[in-house]
Amino acid sequence: MKIVFLGTGGSWPSPERNVSAIAVKRGSEVLLFDCGEGTQRQLMKSTVSFMQVKKIFITHFHGDHFLGLPGLIQSMSLNDRKQELEIYGPEGCSELILTIMNLGYYNPSYPVQMTDVAPGDILEFEEYTVNVGEASHNIPAVIYALEEKLRPGKFNKPRALEMGIPEGKYFSQLQAGKTVEHKGKTFTPDMVLGPPRPGRKLVYTGDTKPCDAITELAKDCDVLIHDSTSALDLEEKANFYGHSSSRQAAEAAKEANAVKLFLTHISPRYDDTVQLELDAKTVFENSQVAEDFLEYDVKYKE
Amino acid sequence: MKIVFLGTGGSWPSPERNVSAIAVKRGSEVLLFDCGEGTQRQLMKSTVSFMQVKKIFITHFHGDHFLGLPGLIQSMSLNDRKQELEIYGPEGCSELILTIMNLGYYNPSYPVQMTDVAPGDILEFEEYTVNVGEASHNIPAVIYALEEKLRPGKFNKPRALEMGIPEGKYFSQLQAGKTVEHKGKTFTPDMVLGPPRPGRKLVYTGDTKPCDAITELAKDCDVLIHDSTSALDLEEKANFYGHSSSRQAAEAAKEANAVKLFLTHISPRYDDTVQLELDAKTVFENSQVAEDFLEYDVKYKE
Repeated sequence: MKIVFLGTGGSWPSPERNVSAIAVKRGSEVLLFDCGEGTQRQLMKSTVSFMQVKKIFITHFHGDHFLGLPGLIQSMSLNDRKQELEIYGPEGCSELILTIMNLGYYNPSYPVQMTDVAPGDILEFEEYTVNVGEASHNIPAVIYALEEKLRPGKFNKPRALEMGIPEGKYFSQLQAGKTVEHKGKTFTPDMVLGPPRPGRKLVYTGDTKPCDAITELAKDCDVLIHDSTSALDLEEKANFYGHSSSRQAAEAAKEANAVKLFLTHISPRYDDTVQLELDAKTVFENSQVAEDFLEYDVKYKE
Repeated sequence: MKIVFLGTGGSWPSPERNVSAIAVKRGSEVLLFDCGEGTQRQLMKSTVSFMQVKKIFITHFHGDHFLGLPGLIQSMSLNDRKQELEIYGPEGCSELILTIMNLGYYNPSYPVQMTDVAPGDILEFEEYTVNVGEASHNIPAVIYALEEKLRPGKFNKPRALEMGIPEGKYFSQLQAGKTVEHKGKTFTPDMVLGPPRPGRKLVYTGDTKPCDAITELAKDCDVLIHDSTSALDLEEKANFYGHSSSRQAAEAAKEANAVKLFLTHISPRYDDTVQLELDAKTVFENSQVAEDFLEYDVKYKE
């Protein structure tokens, strides 16, 4: 699972940072979290194919988080997409997407499935779930927690050989959870696999001031991507507008026992983010200011 | 008058070219012709202030020509604009802009005046007119011709001195069209000014296949900015979709007796535009492929 930051600036773009969008590559699937204006071009400049985006999760309907949707949707059609696109967002999402799809002259080449989500929802997909939490912003806004399902336990090769299972296809079948037969004997996966291991967990707060939902959703996560609109000097102002300082993001990461914290939604006022990162590192060492096009491999914990 | 190309690519953006937008600086005013997605960020990367945009002229409502409007409008509000913004576009413009201004959560800080234009319209402004022509595209689309009003004739300095007018403030007052008195004598501008001289003329076709309206509107223009979606090899395909080849753009420039031709709306299929420019130069020598951020000073003819 790889994170590709596409837009790390807050409110409006700057020459250095585009507005909010984060791509997550999982196998051949790409998930997009938020889709600010210009996201399609950021995708084209990145290592991620814009045509591979399968699901889009919007945190809230401030322009810098969703105005890239109409252009991306239309360019996918112009490039003859057939595969369905799924878009999730808080209340009003379906209605808004319908409006967006009827802006100007546009002929869709593929279906778009729109889903309104609410805090507390658990979106179930084949290989992972996406939990929805309530952010504390000045309009309805949600937090998304992507959690991979349990994966098979570690394969005990010495044990398998000891039991007389020959190396090769039986190994991979057992590893994939299938029962195999060899020389009249039946071998079940539990004979050679350790206990199921947790998958990876990634939490994206969108725009929010500090709130309990973050630490609950982000408990033991591998990566927390948190609103960090300001450094400590403007924390009060940031909170007033429903945003967080980088120090507050770090406190959430620490409390949640996260492995890694990325600071994003950086205000265009900051040419230099040294202090902003420092404020966070003082509280939570593994903090990093995200930059446009930064890539990060989310590793399994063990 | 300076032209700043902000987006020179057609249909969808590429890493090299953003979608359609052209800024024209005239004194402290900025006019924008088309406003594809990402135009606000292109402005921020250019020498033009996005807050100085006073009027926007949209040629047609395909996404790559107008989807930058909502973000630009909203960012102007976030930066506390008070000055009215004028937006012009073909049929359906006002309704579309109203829809755009109600996407998501947005509080306008300034008024937006929307005007639907039709081929044949002449928009009168203090220092220039904008003539509207009918393009030949596959949806309603217009061509814009910006023509500066006549400017005062050349000041005849030897004649003025000969008549006993002292150099200094009287010269500038006469040049500005005012009558002055000196030592009991009255001097009128016509005594020292040559005949009024034509202003500059700039024509932007938007998306179109070849059509008569272009050569009519562009007659003797200083700059023609023309749809050049394809090189000669794909001319037939370009025409089928309501676009032009660079050769056809050059033919229009030649027929209109233009001074300079800029080729724009280049298809993302072209990594290299050498052939595209060559096709045009064969017909009209003063042809140039526009690039994002290219600036061009439009000089007076004499």
